[in-house]
Amino acid sequence: MAKDLFSSHPPFTPPTSEEDRLSWLRLIRSPRVGPATFHRLMTEHGCAATALEVLPTLAKSAGVDTYQPCSHAAAEAEIDLARAKGARMLCLGTDAYPHTLASISDAPPVLWCIGKRAPILRPMVALVGARNASSLGTRMARALAEGLGHEGYTIVSGLARGVDAAAHHASLKTGTIAVMGGGVDVIYPTENSVLAAAISDQGLRLSEQPMSLHPQARHFPPRNRIIAGLALAVVVVEAAEKSGTLITVRDALDQGREIMAVPGHPVDGRAGGCNRLIREGATLVRHVEDVLEVLRRLQAEHEHPDKSGPDETHPAPQVAPDAPQLHRRILDLLGPSPVAEDQLIRDLSLSAAAISPALVMMEMQGIVRRHPGGLVSRS
Amino acid sequence: MAKDLFSSHPPFTPPTSEEDRLSWLRLIRSPRVGPATFHRLMTEHGCAATALEVLPTLAKSAGVDTYQPCSHAAAEAEIDLARAKGARMLCLGTDAYPHTLASISDAPPVLWCIGKRAPILRPMVALVGARNASSLGTRMARALAEGLGHEGYTIVSGLARGVDAAAHHASLKTGTIAVMGGGVDVIYPTENSVLAAAISDQGLRLSEQPMSLHPQARHFPPRNRIIAGLALAVVVVEAAEKSGTLITVRDALDQGREIMAVPGHPVDGRAGGCNRLIREGATLVRHVEDVLEVLRRLQAEHEHPDKSGPDETHPAPQVAPDAPQLHRRILDLLGPSPVAEDQLIRDLSLSAAAISPALVMMEMQGIVRRHPGGLVSRS
Repeated sequence: MAKDLFSSHPPFTPPTSEEDRLSWLRLIRSPRVGPATFHRLMTEHGCAATALEVLPTLAKSAGVDTYQPCSHAAAEAEIDLARAKGARMLCLGTDAYPHTLASISDAPPVLWCIGKRAPILRPMVALVGARNASSLGTRMARALAEGLGHEGYTIVSGLARGVDAAAHHASLKTGTIAVMGGGVDVIYPTENSVLAAAISDQGLRLSEQPMSLHPQARHFPPRNRIIAGLALAVVVVEAAEKSGTLITVRDALDQGREIMAVPGHPVDGRAGGCNRLIREGATLVRHVEDVLEVLRRLQAEHEHPDKSGPDETHPAPQVAPDAPQLHRRILDLLGPSPVAEDQLIRDLSLSAAAISPALVMMEMQGIVRRHPGGLVSRS
Repeated sequence: MAKDLFSSHPPFTPPTSEEDRLSWLRLIRSPRVGPATFHRLMTEHGCAATALEVLPTLAKSAGVDTYQPCSHAAAEAEIDLARAKGARMLCLGTDAYPHTLASISDAPPVLWCIGKRAPILRPMVALVGARNASSLGTRMARALAEGLGHEGYTIVSGLARGVDAAAHHASLKTGTIAVMGGGVDVIYPTENSVLAAAISDQGLRLSEQPMSLHPQARHFPPRNRIIAGLALAVVVVEAAEKSGTLITVRDALDQGREIMAVPGHPVDGRAGGCNRLIREGATLVRHVEDVLEVLRRLQAEHEHPDKSGPDETHPAPQVAPDAPQLHRRILDLLGPSPVAEDQLIRDLSLSAAAISPALVMMEMQGIVRRHPGGLVSRS
């Protein structure tokens, strides 16, 4: 059931030259090309340069005549800016790219990183929670981050106020990674500037977004999938019933990550999200030992994985229908609420290989939208 | 799996005359006759009067030559005292006896009750927790007791300080039952005298202990099994990691009762027991609706019970060995820590009918001790 969190590799090779890295960056920065479409195009065309050549034709056949991929110059400018800011590029499929993150279905093809390499080499735990954390909440975040750090785990969080900041502070010495919502060089919130500088000095900051991008609300859900994707498990310290923190958790669940939560008294609104998660099956966390117990189990499972093969109960895929008919059938199944692409594949009784090109085409046409966690919806 | 909580009856008839009730009282008040032995003797001999006649012979064959059953006079004195205090006797197997309690393996043969009949006729929920409850804890106990009361549930608790007292107070109008550790007429702690009077006035107090018995520490575990036994489910509001409350919970688990617990922040010592229970599978309770959800499910399961028959995977019982050999085999299996009698039966691969008389004999000899929840140990 559990995906192997440590050794997933995409079915295409990472860039081997500067030119190839530039093509990768151009491809992922091209309009309407998100991580999922990047993966499809690479799988179909083998390398980014070929995919970039095919893109305008693909767009044209999708009815978009004016399509312009990201230009050579724009990608070069981003690379120059990154160099000036001391950021280095991490490409999916390389040994330096975190293997846990590589295992998620929409792993970022390119990450910009500022800081040390060491934190990314250790097993990681995400520690997330309320921005308006109580003093109990920040104290708990500190205690967990310190305890996990001393046991050799890197703490991953989002550099937000409250729980995130407390978790980063407490793990500066042992290993901390801040996943940024905007460009890796854009500190948000600005009150965490000193902390952000300390993290790039002693830990690591990273982002899949273009350098210098100022984060907007829509950038945080994709950012949260990276926090969860890097980690073996996600620990929620405080979270209101309706909070951004719970979005990270939903992503973590989609990615098969273990969820843990620190409970609180029901009259405390900041415990609402955590208590709900526990009711829904998250492990209740009282102290660092409860987290370590889960992490040790996950690592033991990795060492002695379940020998059962992939799920083979799905009906055999049928012959693919022609494109317009398939597009119609896909649209019939989609609504404004995102559904899992896997579900779509099952509902259509077709192979992923038949459906993927259609989805790429429909995304280029702007009639289908992709969401983190392998979800798609009507635009 | 779940026992039917509503319609269990012992395999012997309740007393039908005053004389018979007196015999019941004498039998359960006789030395070394606890509820489990009472059940066995009644099952074997059909009525209490015969069991009383057999007792001295049984004791003699167990090597106790000076055995004296409870005298006629002593039992009559207890009945007179009860009458004077306004207590009435409830005998196991009568319609007035609560059916949930009748379903536990060591149901009290006789209960003394002071108060109204109504609370015992409604479905019951146990609400228990810390004596040194926080103000949040007592507030939560009140809110749950009030909410459950308004939905038609009677609240069962132990008249202790803190959570118990708050739960009784809040359910005086809707239905409350205090299960006493000592005699039903002995108020402990004395600071709850006014509350105890209000309960006998508007609710119900009950006890299996002799009238006027002053409770000691050893009386509370058997009392706790009655609290759990009366209820469909047990809700724990606050409980330290090592607390008497958790004894009630262990009994409740032995009896197949649903356990629910209100979480708290891990730094709060009074949340330790509850958080542990939740980690171990208890349902996390945030508000009355969470409790009602479980109660509705339990009642629905009662209305549509699992159709599967009793577990028939046990090996067929063998022919019973002779008594000394059986006693030796039982002693070999027992230690100072109580184990389930069911386990003993399985380990010996013998029928309950073969083992029960041996256990009665060994209890009379004082070499075996019975504990609440169908447990036995070496004395």
